[in-house]
Amino acid sequence: MNQPITPEESLQRIRIVLSRPSHPGNIGAAARAMKTMGLSRLYLVNPKSFPDPEADARATGAVDVLHAAAVCATLDEALAGTIHAVAVSARRRDLGPQPQPARDGVANLLGFAQQGEVALVFGNETTGLSNDEVQRCQSAVTIPTAPDFSSLNLGAAVQLLCYEARMTALAAPAVLGDPKVTPFTSPLATLDEAEGFYAHLETVMVESGFMDPAKPKRLLPKLRRLFGRAGLEKDEVNILRGILTATQLAEKRQKNR
Amino acid sequence: MNQPITPEESLQRIRIVLSRPSHPGNIGAAARAMKTMGLSRLYLVNPKSFPDPEADARATGAVDVLHAAAVCATLDEALAGTIHAVAVSARRRDLGPQPQPARDGVANLLGFAQQGEVALVFGNETTGLSNDEVQRCQSAVTIPTAPDFSSLNLGAAVQLLCYEARMTALAAPAVLGDPKVTPFTSPLATLDEAEGFYAHLETVMVESGFMDPAKPKRLLPKLRRLFGRAGLEKDEVNILRGILTATQLAEKRQKNR
Repeated sequence: MNQPITPEESLQRIRIVLSRPSHPGNIGAAARAMKTMGLSRLYLVNPKSFPDPEADARATGAVDVLHAAAVCATLDEALAGTIHAVAVSARRRDLGPQPQPARDGVANLLGFAQQGEVALVFGNETTGLSNDEVQRCQSAVTIPTAPDFSSLNLGAAVQLLCYEARMTALAAPAVLGDPKVTPFTSPLATLDEAEGFYAHLETVMVESGFMDPAKPKRLLPKLRRLFGRAGLEKDEVNILRGILTATQLAEKRQKNR
Repeated sequence: MNQPITPEESLQRIRIVLSRPSHPGNIGAAARAMKTMGLSRLYLVNPKSFPDPEADARATGAVDVLHAAAVCATLDEALAGTIHAVAVSARRRDLGPQPQPARDGVANLLGFAQQGEVALVFGNETTGLSNDEVQRCQSAVTIPTAPDFSSLNLGAAVQLLCYEARMTALAAPAVLGDPKVTPFTSPLATLDEAEGFYAHLETVMVESGFMDPAKPKRLLPKLRRLFGRAGLEKDEVNILRGILTATQLAEKRQKNR
């Protein structure tokens, strides 16, 4: 179904996304950390200061990675075209995907990388990822730390996950072969496709009176979590949206009766 | 033979030794990296600048680890009392122990930590560890990196090895039980005891005319590598030194005849 790719190619499919980084030094450190492990695709969502001489200084020999970074206005923009995004989070959340240990989560991510672009998403140094950002991701990882001091530096967190990615990609290429395919499997949906579905779903939920937009409760996050965990495929999105469209058309027909 | 210790206790037995660090920021980053993984024993050999406000700034919540650091004049001083020291080195060397990948080397180190104090030894940011420093260590590890860019930041290297130590210590306590004991096993020799033996050996080699101190070739490094690989035990050191002393006494008796 898909051509097998080399370990180095799978590492090249991982985007490192830094959301709202405050310290340019950390951006440079992230670029250097990535390059040591064979990654090169850096995405910055609303960085406080970039470009910045401090970022260049900390990147040392990885200024090529730094200067090629994509600067984005939104997380969705940074994730456009990816089929799987993993939130890196120290906190447990009521909603959103349950975090796996880094090693397991990265192995999972590399499985997806066989099929397309993937992302590791890191939050702001002080505030981490927002709940909304975590819910944009299909899964989550946490880096195991000492219980009384989990305050990892942002560059250090990027280093650890890139290292785990390299170790997994190079150590076990056999594990990273084509995922089990059934005759019904289609490629995974991109994030844009999934978001299009969620927006469509929300519209239908509101139009149908199922959800009061003034009191949304936690309906959408819960649905995101469900579909995110499942890992939506393209065909499935088409089918689901087909159903949504069909309900909308039926409603209109009723109105016009 | 030895009381089993907890994973957290075994992490507390690992010294992080930074030899001749140039940048105080990296010392602070190392302290923070250690504390996130449950390590706390930092040793600095001839730091260029310490204490330093930049080190404090980068340590953030780990200033306790930073301020408790032992500042030493020599590597031997930093390693005094350890039973096993691992050199962290990006380069392959003609002499000295062959480097293992970080994950394997750390698992090995934690095995030794069941018996006593151990150390991970990091070199200067630019020049790394000297050959003499590497030969002070019984084994060596290297962090796998991209072949075209192996330039890991010092703080990042400390972070990776402390993370591997924590992962190994907590994931596989069963593996870290008492090493196989035979009725002849004695505790491992401390570094001081091993160094005492090497010095004694050198004296005897010179006194005996076996080694010309003006042309030592690579005799001592080769011997160090042999004994380091074996992992000297206390009783063995006593026996070896007993033999050396005996040869010296015999020589004197011959002279006085």
